[in-house]
Amino acid sequence: MSSVTPRFPHLLHGGDYNPDQWLDRPDILEKDIELMKAAHINCVSVAIFAWAKLEPEEGRYEFGWLEEVIGNLYKNGIYTVLATPSGAKPRWMSEKYPEIRRVDGSGKREESGKRHNHCYTSPVYREKVKAMNTTLAERFAKHPGVILWHLSNEYGGECRCELCKAAFREWLKKKYGDISALNKQYWTDFWAQTYNNWEEINPPTPRTMWGADPIHGLCIDWRRFVTDQVGDFIKMERDAVKAADPSIPVTANLMYDFYFYNYFKWRDILDVVSWDSYPVWVGNAKGDVEEAQNHALWHDVMRSIKQKPFLLMESCPSATNWQPVSRLKRPGMQLAASMSAVGHGSNSVQYFQFRKSRGSSEKFHGAVVDHVGHGDTRAFRDVAEVGERLELLDKALYNSEVRPDVAIVFDTENRWALDNAQGPRNCGIHYAEAVRDQYRALWQMGVPVDIVDEESDISGYKLVLAPMLYMLRAGFEEKLKAFVKDGGALVGTYHTGLVNENDLCHLGGWPGGGLRELFGIWNEEIDGLWDGEENSIITEDGKSYRVTELCELIHAEEAKVIGTYGSDFYKGMPAWTVAEYGKGQAYYVAARAGVDFYSDFLGTLVSDLQCKRALPGEIPFGVEACLRETDTESFVFLQNFTGEPKTVALPEGCTDMRTGQPAAKVELRGYDSVTIAKNIK
Amino acid sequence: MSSVTPRFPHLLHGGDYNPDQWLDRPDILEKDIELMKAAHINCVSVAIFAWAKLEPEEGRYEFGWLEEVIGNLYKNGIYTVLATPSGAKPRWMSEKYPEIRRVDGSGKREESGKRHNHCYTSPVYREKVKAMNTTLAERFAKHPGVILWHLSNEYGGECRCELCKAAFREWLKKKYGDISALNKQYWTDFWAQTYNNWEEINPPTPRTMWGADPIHGLCIDWRRFVTDQVGDFIKMERDAVKAADPSIPVTANLMYDFYFYNYFKWRDILDVVSWDSYPVWVGNAKGDVEEAQNHALWHDVMRSIKQKPFLLMESCPSATNWQPVSRLKRPGMQLAASMSAVGHGSNSVQYFQFRKSRGSSEKFHGAVVDHVGHGDTRAFRDVAEVGERLELLDKALYNSEVRPDVAIVFDTENRWALDNAQGPRNCGIHYAEAVRDQYRALWQMGVPVDIVDEESDISGYKLVLAPMLYMLRAGFEEKLKAFVKDGGALVGTYHTGLVNENDLCHLGGWPGGGLRELFGIWNEEIDGLWDGEENSIITEDGKSYRVTELCELIHAEEAKVIGTYGSDFYKGMPAWTVAEYGKGQAYYVAARAGVDFYSDFLGTLVSDLQCKRALPGEIPFGVEACLRETDTESFVFLQNFTGEPKTVALPEGCTDMRTGQPAAKVELRGYDSVTIAKNIK
Amino acid sequence: MSSVTPRFPHLLHGGDYNPDQWLDRPDILEKDIELMKAAHINCVSVAIFAWAKLEPEEGRYEFGWLEEVIGNLYKNGIYTVLATPSGAKPRWMSEKYPEIRRVDGSGKREESGKRHNHCYTSPVYREKVKAMNTTLAERFAKHPGVILWHLSNEYGGECRCELCKAAFREWLKKKYGDISALNKQYWTDFWAQTYNNWEEINPPTPRTMWGADPIHGLCIDWRRFVTDQVGDFIKMERDAVKAADPSIPVTANLMYDFYFYNYFKWRDILDVVSWDSYPVWVGNAKGDVEEAQNHALWHDVMRSIKQKPFLLMESCPSATNWQPVSRLKRPGMQLAASMSAVGHGSNSVQYFQFRKSRGSSEKFHGAVVDHVGHGDTRAFRDVAEVGERLELLDKALYNSEVRPDVAIVFDTENRWALDNAQGPRNCGIHYAEAVRDQYRALWQMGVPVDIVDEESDISGYKLVLAPMLYMLRAGFEEKLKAFVKDGGALVGTYHTGLVNENDLCHLGGWPGGGLRELFGIWNEEIDGLWDGEENSIITEDGKSYRVTELCELIHAEEAKVIGTYGSDFYKGMPAWTVAEYGKGQAYYVAARAGVDFYSDFLGTLVSDLQCKRALPGEIPFGVEACLRETDTESFVFLQNFTGEPKTVALPEGCTDMRTGQPAAKVELRGYDSVTIAKNIK
Repeated sequence: MSSVTPRFPHLLHGGDYNPDQWLDRPDILEKDIELMKAAHINCVSVAIFAWAKLEPEEGRYEFGWLEEVIGNLYKNGIYTVLATPSGAKPRWMSEKYPEIRRVDGSGKREESGKRHNHCYTSPVYREKVKAMNTTLAERFAKHPGVILWHLSNEYGGECRCELCKAAFREWLKKKYGDISALNKQYWTDFWAQTYNNWEEINPPTPRTMWGADPIHGLCIDWRRFVTDQVGDFIKMERDAVKAADPSIPVTANLMYDFYFYNYFKWRDILDVVSWDSYPVWVGNAKGDVEEAQNHALWHDVMRSIKQKPFLLMESCPSATNWQPVSRLKRPGMQLAASMSAVGHGSNSVQYFQFRKSRGSSEKFHGAVVDHVGHGDTRAFRDVAEVGERLELLDKALYNSEVRPDVAIVFDTENRWALDNAQGPRNCGIHYAEAVRDQYRALWQMGVPVDIVDEESDISGYKLVLAPMLYMLRAGFEEKLKAFVKDGGALVGTYHTGLVNENDLCHLGGWPGGGLRELFGIWNEEIDGLWDGEENSIITEDGKSYRVTELCELIHAEEAKVIGTYGSDFYKGMPAWTVAEYGKGQAYYVAARAGVDFYSDFLGTLVSDLQCKRALPGEIPFGVEACLRETDTESFVFLQNFTGEPKTVALPEGCTDMRTGQPAAKVELRGYDSVTIAKNIK
Repeated sequence: MSSVTPRFPHLLHGGDYNPDQWLDRPDILEKDIELMKAAHINCVSVAIFAWAKLEPEEGRYEFGWLEEVIGNLYKNGIYTVLATPSGAKPRWMSEKYPEIRRVDGSGKREESGKRHNHCYTSPVYREKVKAMNTTLAERFAKHPGVILWHLSNEYGGECRCELCKAAFREWLKKKYGDISALNKQYWTDFWAQTYNNWEEINPPTPRTMWGADPIHGLCIDWRRFVTDQVGDFIKMERDAVKAADPSIPVTANLMYDFYFYNYFKWRDILDVVSWDSYPVWVGNAKGDVEEAQNHALWHDVMRSIKQKPFLLMESCPSATNWQPVSRLKRPGMQLAASMSAVGHGSNSVQYFQFRKSRGSSEKFHGAVVDHVGHGDTRAFRDVAEVGERLELLDKALYNSEVRPDVAIVFDTENRWALDNAQGPRNCGIHYAEAVRDQYRALWQMGVPVDIVDEESDISGYKLVLAPMLYMLRAGFEEKLKAFVKDGGALVGTYHTGLVNENDLCHLGGWPGGGLRELFGIWNEEIDGLWDGEENSIITEDGKSYRVTELCELIHAEEAKVIGTYGSDFYKGMPAWTVAEYGKGQAYYVAARAGVDFYSDFLGTLVSDLQCKRALPGEIPFGVEACLRETDTESFVFLQNFTGEPKTVALPEGCTDMRTGQPAAKVELRGYDSVTIAKNIK
Repeated sequence: MSSVTPRFPHLLHGGDYNPDQWLDRPDILEKDIELMKAAHINCVSVAIFAWAKLEPEEGRYEFGWLEEVIGNLYKNGIYTVLATPSGAKPRWMSEKYPEIRRVDGSGKREESGKRHNHCYTSPVYREKVKAMNTTLAERFAKHPGVILWHLSNEYGGECRCELCKAAFREWLKKKYGDISALNKQYWTDFWAQTYNNWEEINPPTPRTMWGADPIHGLCIDWRRFVTDQVGDFIKMERDAVKAADPSIPVTANLMYDFYFYNYFKWRDILDVVSWDSYPVWVGNAKGDVEEAQNHALWHDVMRSIKQKPFLLMESCPSATNWQPVSRLKRPGMQLAASMSAVGHGSNSVQYFQFRKSRGSSEKFHGAVVDHVGHGDTRAFRDVAEVGERLELLDKALYNSEVRPDVAIVFDTENRWALDNAQGPRNCGIHYAEAVRDQYRALWQMGVPVDIVDEESDISGYKLVLAPMLYMLRAGFEEKLKAFVKDGGALVGTYHTGLVNENDLCHLGGWPGGGLRELFGIWNEEIDGLWDGEENSIITEDGKSYRVTELCELIHAEEAKVIGTYGSDFYKGMPAWTVAEYGKGQAYYVAARAGVDFYSDFLGTLVSDLQCKRALPGEIPFGVEACLRETDTESFVFLQNFTGEPKTVALPEGCTDMRTGQPAAKVELRGYDSVTIAKNIK
């Protein structure tokens, strides 16, 4: 595998560093270096949001302070992730060039000020960013302290200015060729919405997009266009910094549960995926275990985008000020949360931020160094402990990977379509939750999982889970059939195969796209249940599982019925089936089942199919077990996300990496992490 | 009585049919005819929203496809309800003539696209609609398959463009003559809001209308104007289609609980009232019985507008996709809900829609024919069962009517005023709920009810209920007095007779307008109760009824006290009174009582006054009993809206219309409908 | 002390009177006088909102009707509080001069109409108001019946027009001198928000102000500017009316819990503070006692602004129509609520309004005279009872004052800052509630309290409570240190001393500004608790108090620990400390404690420090005891805010002022008020 950070091939520990806020305080800048060393920090991210300091007026670049900062860090053994400053345009620029400010869904151009609100289509803004990036790269790309480009910050949002509208129309023209093809796919004869020419097409507005009367195909195409347009902006940023030295990789820091863009579309644009993880820790077992699972899923999403190690680019060293409640991290949580990221494939633990800002929005956001200014604080000591642990693991871990046998399909475009769908449960269709429930069952078993989308290759897995695959696109139905035919096990659910990529219904009986044949069932209709209502799946041996929200009334055609409904007028109708197809099996779960169902069902499948697990035995509740591997060794990361101590039994041949000694079991404190090495060859 | 559909004098069964979405699929159009016949469909509604297909560019009419469709249907014994397409203007028109797009409450003109959003004042739009309707009528009015004009679709909404503002000012000038009269009625001296001339008057905006600082009289006049202006638009549509052949009646499909307009004002504009009924069935006794009552009330509203049979123009053959949860109809519910409409006076059961759209907003809305494309589905069979039942009843039923002895006053303008009132319960004044609670008591007793407004003639009833008659208008106070004087029984409640038609208070002690003399009480003040709080009415014989929300402190003047308050500082004060007035009685219920109170109270009144009932004995809970009559026969419709079987005892001389055999009782399945015939002469 | 109303040195009883709505009904105007006398009314407020009647068209003043009204009142012994009509500009004016209408946060100029929405910067509006006030004063200032100027009505809101923006920039220039000083204080380097010149500065909008991404310093400066600008407008109004006769005092009626402006900044602008009090009485002990405490606190705020008697300018004689529920006042509540105001220092009981309006927004707002038009109503009799009581007390009470030993710091600018803060509890930081809980403890003990802000002099108190003093400003930290050094007792809490007056953090360890030394503790971090979670403070003798929401992890440096946390990972850490400092003590409560904690804690302090109380012994739950004093006598006002009778024991030397007889105890009905006189010299 190619190295994530070739100039500095190590696990990274550090975070955002904003010396630009303290340039008039050299004493503080000096103290920073001292504290970084004490915290075992080897890397910081610099110049995010520094445009006003880098180019205080048009064309006047001031890079001297930055050169001094990077140089001082490097002299002290601390490497730099260098940011492009496009995340916040300076005020002089948005005043002089109004076109770079976004137009919102009501047609209003944003006022000057704020961050993350430039138009990504604007030629002026692209020119300014390109000039900045080029100049920055010419000056710093060759600096031995610079190891990675951090493009902008948390790309997000959308713009509906005339420039964007024109670009959208071009995008549509390219996709559909002529307007009648578009009308056909958008089914515009409904309510006389027929377009006569491209100029009549406007982006959907928030009101139409997530509300009444949308043209569904248009809404999804708009999201696709926005993803592509932002992707194009990123490419422009990337090419500008790579011109000076293509060997330095680029990353962009992505966000939790963000699906406004389809991140998977950028797999080939970014060299490295990184992201910002801010769990809402509540300090009790129920909430923290679930939150650990939520973020574990997104660690896996980030790793899966490029199928290689990612970077944890931001995390909070203490309480996060913008959450509803700024809950302090319980002792041990800093370590547990950080090592969970590494266990799922991160090659770094980075924080926002090193030194707390003195003013503005995030002046109460947890930081490595608080306003008190010294390192004798609980938060600082917690950070230093993580740094020590990373140093300990660095050599063994750096080239290891996560290599699952199981994949869950979690497709962003399908999610857009389901969010936008009208029926069968407008009060909550819960696609992401359906994915998460399956994921939770696997997490508790210590089963490594890839998160794939409909454009991914699934041929290498033993087991593929594809809940609520409402929209079929990119020929994925063919991949599914080939996968099962070749011996794979597939688990599908209710609400699968209803529409094509433009949200146009398949005719002739669902699941469409040939999946009726694959699953061997026909879905006649679907019953929506109100919150608080339930039905059940009764298995052949009389076991009962609660189901809620959506119950499909299906007919087994080729499939074998392995569970039926327990009540209501469809009592006794099939609720769970399996079809033999080629060498594999296609399971169909016709109703929304919960974690208990999937724990039993997937437990059996994982065992029968001999899918890889971190540990062979049962894992105590709330303890996460991650698996990273090289060709010769495997590493098990055990994180306890409960406040109670837990004991985990180990198989033979295990070494506790903290001591280098063999271990037959591990004792974990409440909130804790231990890493185990195991020879596998 | 005049026939509802003279060209085809039968109960109609069918629904919306949109062949314009499938013109490139002749195989599907052919299949449609076959499936219609199988479903016992005799009538479909065509061309709603077809403007883009009927006039694809300005002035180019394409009616050929429509002629073919109507012809094919007719050849196969299926009649056409022909729509005017004004519910959705084509995109080319709203691009070329911006004035036809509405201006919203914030002063913004709507973007192109969407349906139901034309300005009903715009001369351009009126001209375009008139030209379309005229041309359509010239081509099709003489076609023997065309039996009814369906004007536009679900008229709704409002516009605040300059054209509408000017028309509003003219309307006000006509009403008030000079500005000082308006100022007096609007009481504009309060807060120095005096108008100096007509041009200063603007429509209320959503913010002022249902929020802070409204001029109440202005708000109500605006609604009156909008009702009149839309009524004028409908007249224009009607006259255009009637020009070619005045013998074809016109209808417009109205909506459930819609009181944005005062539908009663259109009694003389429409030949036939029709409406779209979409209950939210939940699948359990509590919810479904209440929902059946809610829709029964609105069936009665629709019938009462013209005091003659109406048409159920839309209903859902399966789950309704735009409700919070798309709940499947339980087996039997299709029949029960459909026959309830007929029992309350509908001469049709029509569906939206015949074939499910392949794309857009309602692609998951239940239809007679699903995407699977054949009739072998539960929904299709349910529809066919309704069709068979209608064929069975057609001959006997077609000329029967509903002829109640009881009326409830449910006045739309009073409702506007109460919604807009400030005090005494801004957290919920619940006028409609007060009406419904009285209605529910009568429904369960099988008492037919007319729903009248303050412009209606009430002289023919035995019993009139007038809850919360806050606003007196149109001289209704005189009608009430005459009604009681002539021997009628009247039930009034708290919050009656406070203001005149412009929301200006009556002075001199409430109830005003002479009603203080009629009820023989003086209402000194009213106590607002918080949700969860209660008081009680204690009767002379010690029975106690819970009351909530509003308790008036009244003084009996001429009236006799028949119930007093059970607690609080006004314990022992009158809460329920009756006054003799002429030959009749005027009851006054001073607090918000519930269904239990009205069941006992109205049960006694109905019995004492010998008001007509569908059946003489007690009717099992959740079973509806409707009564249609001719001069010689009566027909009792029994619908079970619970999931449990019920037995209903019948009086002598009854025939089960399913079998034609005499019957002494009826066994109803859970969700079921049976119709009984009885000789009454 | 200077008299509040020198021309008529008596307790006032009366209210808003709007004869301008009834000029065409001389019979009603005549009846008004008769009813005023019957209600013991000696004073009414006239001409609020009468601009349309006073100047019906530009430059044409019509004052005749007003002269007649004032004259008639005076002839009948009723005095006039004369209003300037600027609260509602007439419609002709806002049509002719659009600039006088406000521009809202979205940049939109308001439509014509409505009240309270003029631009307070507009030169045109200032000129119009000045001309009106001048003319009004020239005509009426010398009238012997006129005793007070009532400036405008309930000043409120803000404007963001270009005139206001320019004024704001001037205000900032004056404060900061140069733009870099502003940038420094606003910490604009964060997110590249640096301002290059004054013209780039715009007022914060609602979205940025209370939402995402604010510059905190800018938000607070904007509120300061708005307060100053409105203050400047008031000065202009004042000077205009004072020109004719400077001896007549001016007041402006302020509002409950209104902190959009910093009322304390107007202490030197107004001669008399008055306010409008509208409790939400619910009719049960729990709610009414709390609501009485809420309004008692605001009575104390109003008195404390100028540290002298204030006026209750508006209150409701019955149910308040704009509250969620219009609850009737229970018998006795009118007296209890009115006398509570007097007990806290009001020299009046005034109502909105005398005669109910016949139309518009407040036609259902309780009034002395209802639509029925006579005085034989419960509400009228309740009002008359208050009038009688005031007449009884007038002579003794008029020159008495409230003179507390205890002050609570409740700083409006600190409140702005806390509302706007991001972290540590965005779901509710509850500053006002923290103040209220301390106040409630003192209220139940009958301890008189001043409410001061950070600009107040605190040297005269024995005990100062300063909860959540997040923002230090105006050198208040020095006053606090001097106060304790000189022997005062100070109670501080968590979240104190974090930022300077521009919301910029203190560095070097909190509490900042020298308070770390004063309290002798260091606050390392703060834990946010979710709603429903709790911890406890355990005292040395084992007593436990529940704490919620926020728990600081502090280190005792010089302080003595007197309470520790009872649970969680910081169990045993200090939660309550006291430091000796000079001759005084500085207490620090590290977590959010409740009324029970402060009852015990402050009870001990009040007793140890011998702070003044209304009565020496325990006061029954729900009974308020207020204390007004002259140099020779003290008056104890006892109000029962429960529905149950209560007995209060009195010390020796007390006289029941109702009878003039000595009394050893008082029996209070449910909802009642008795005033007791006591010789103190």
